[in-house]
Amino acid sequence: MTQAPPASGLSAATLDALLSTRGKDLPPPRIGDPRKSADLISFMSGFPDPASLPAQQVAEATARAMEKDGRWALQYGATMGYTGLVDALLDKLGRHQGIRAGRENVLITAGGSQAVALTLDLLVDPGDTVLMEEPTWMGFVYALNNLGAKSVGVPVDEHGTDLEALERELKRLTAEGVRPKLIYVIPNFQNPSGVSTTLARRKRIVELAHEYGTLILEDDAYYDLRYEGEWLPPIYTLDEVGQTFYLGTFSKIMGAGMRLGWLVAPPAIIGKLATLKIDGGTNVFGSHVAAEWVPRHLDDHIAKLREIYRRRRDLMLASLARHMPEGTTWTTPEGGFFIWVTFPEGVDTVKMLPQARERGVEFLPGRTCYAQDRGHRFLRLSYSFAEDEQIDDGIRIVGEIARGELLETGRA
Amino acid sequence: MTQAPPASGLSAATLDALLSTRGKDLPPPRIGDPRKSADLISFMSGFPDPASLPAQQVAEATARAMEKDGRWALQYGATMGYTGLVDALLDKLGRHQGIRAGRENVLITAGGSQAVALTLDLLVDPGDTVLMEEPTWMGFVYALNNLGAKSVGVPVDEHGTDLEALERELKRLTAEGVRPKLIYVIPNFQNPSGVSTTLARRKRIVELAHEYGTLILEDDAYYDLRYEGEWLPPIYTLDEVGQTFYLGTFSKIMGAGMRLGWLVAPPAIIGKLATLKIDGGTNVFGSHVAAEWVPRHLDDHIAKLREIYRRRRDLMLASLARHMPEGTTWTTPEGGFFIWVTFPEGVDTVKMLPQARERGVEFLPGRTCYAQDRGHRFLRLSYSFAEDEQIDDGIRIVGEIARGELLETGRA
Repeated sequence: MTQAPPASGLSAATLDALLSTRGKDLPPPRIGDPRKSADLISFMSGFPDPASLPAQQVAEATARAMEKDGRWALQYGATMGYTGLVDALLDKLGRHQGIRAGRENVLITAGGSQAVALTLDLLVDPGDTVLMEEPTWMGFVYALNNLGAKSVGVPVDEHGTDLEALERELKRLTAEGVRPKLIYVIPNFQNPSGVSTTLARRKRIVELAHEYGTLILEDDAYYDLRYEGEWLPPIYTLDEVGQTFYLGTFSKIMGAGMRLGWLVAPPAIIGKLATLKIDGGTNVFGSHVAAEWVPRHLDDHIAKLREIYRRRRDLMLASLARHMPEGTTWTTPEGGFFIWVTFPEGVDTVKMLPQARERGVEFLPGRTCYAQDRGHRFLRLSYSFAEDEQIDDGIRIVGEIARGELLETGRA
Repeated sequence: MTQAPPASGLSAATLDALLSTRGKDLPPPRIGDPRKSADLISFMSGFPDPASLPAQQVAEATARAMEKDGRWALQYGATMGYTGLVDALLDKLGRHQGIRAGRENVLITAGGSQAVALTLDLLVDPGDTVLMEEPTWMGFVYALNNLGAKSVGVPVDEHGTDLEALERELKRLTAEGVRPKLIYVIPNFQNPSGVSTTLARRKRIVELAHEYGTLILEDDAYYDLRYEGEWLPPIYTLDEVGQTFYLGTFSKIMGAGMRLGWLVAPPAIIGKLATLKIDGGTNVFGSHVAAEWVPRHLDDHIAKLREIYRRRRDLMLASLARHMPEGTTWTTPEGGFFIWVTFPEGVDTVKMLPQARERGVEFLPGRTCYAQDRGHRFLRLSYSFAEDEQIDDGIRIVGEIARGELLETGRA
């Protein structure tokens, strides 16, 4: 996207002299246009299923919101969020997540991403250290890179965050005089690995945060989309001291285009974040629409989504068993959007991607989910966006390409 | 809003050890809840007229957008903005502003405020210097404070930015080895002073930016709301080198609740800003709705708004002449929302505000529009939000309070 300025344009030297630390050496924009995925069998992104998006209901909710309160829906809004939506969210969090909170605990944000950005702005200076699961959500890796912060990765195994590694890194950093600013975790159906962190581990993460005096940023974007297994309480509800920030979003359960998310945290934190949040209120119009839609439709919609995504997951798992080369393994997520595939040595998923696109398929190379140049044997498959009928074809093509890679490197 | 954490809560010491430079010593949230203005005669904020907000049209536009393209309106969006809205904006900018630009020049942002935030992130480190008109938009002052940046104020006179002061400061800073990162100007109906910068001065601002190797952030939120006088070309169109960023918003001409603004700049800049903009796309739902509404209604709506605000301005000017104490002066804006009032020595508008609120009226003390503790004799009156019938009463009360202040200090 970065193009040379016009011939008469702003000189590169002038611009370079004016850039901030974070403005220098920026890579090209890393998140492009979702519509580019529309012509492919796309397993690449955490996009909700297009056909399930409640367009008609949203149109009706808009008509009601405009009728009832159009003057305020089209006006600047409160920094903390539209109270109608805050109240609907508090009700949802109480009923679904078991989170008891008041208005003073909530900040409505422009998707989960604004919640992440504000949290990082509040806590992290360039050069500061943050602990995160690795692999993790690429948007978090990008945000840290933009800030010039250091990340320390903690692996994820089939029971979630690797606690031995977490404790080891906390000890090591403390010995070096470094206090990590936060621990970023995705305990449910982790993005990208699909695994969930057990209750025992959740409790221990809280203890470690207390012991080492750091904060937890709990990203629970997929909480409601559990297809099997036991519902586990959010880390936020296990932390009686209040060192956990709980991040969620309507992106996966209403529509990502609403760009509405939230952060739940102690009032002292919410107040500080609100000072940093100079935005005229988060998407006031969309908030009024969501406040109409959520009480009436959210629970039914979640139930419907669970059916759709459970079926997609099962289709993809069956296709993987059919088409992947020997020695390939993958996770079996109990919810969420993602399956994490591990290929035998000799496969580089970054190299596979152009071949896959050539054949009309895309996925996310595992490399994208690491801060360093690692993860080339992995890939993340999302089963949320492609249609049922596309899944087997797409997985077959990915399997064929992987098999070709293995042949080429003499390992198959 | 900042409350003490619960008794069992996160300790202040732990939190302090974890805050970033910008997170430390934050003031309480400075922008609250617009609904608190609803029970007052409010001359305080740049809120559009509630009755004029096109609620019904927006509901209809939503129905059309959902029908045509609901799947994409409720999905994540392109970082640069929804192309349907970008194209409608490019058409508007060409017809109204005389700005010829392509898609690669435009970033759709969450109101003008996200455009400001991204620009500052790209250019400004803590301790860096920025030139700005003084008084200026308080949101800009707040954003600079949050960043820990230094501002150098340039006065505004009845012809706009004071160019002698601007050149003097540029010279002084250059002599001190400081290159200011940008010059922030509001050339039309300046917020808060109401004055417009002449064409000759606009041209000279461009020359100075070129000469001193800095950038111009042109905030033109009120461009379309001219009620009299000659239409003046944006600085952006006068800058052939491309050192000007042009910022605008749908907040004043469609509805602030849409939270949709834009930045127009050279493609090299837009690309860098897009890298910093990790937000899943700006308000995708609202963008689709706006893309339906703008081509069909924008021009008529602007014409209607001009009538409303011109009448309000005239009402307020007449009331000021009737009710202000002798020695008070005020500006006569050719457009926009604001009149800037200068009281005789002895009046402190910060002290007046609680008395005014007591009597059901509010305004913006001039102090808010300065980085330093200055401007106590001034106040900004907005004539956009209060109803026609409220204006004379409100201004009478402000006049009475000012007169009381003068009596108390023995100056009247």
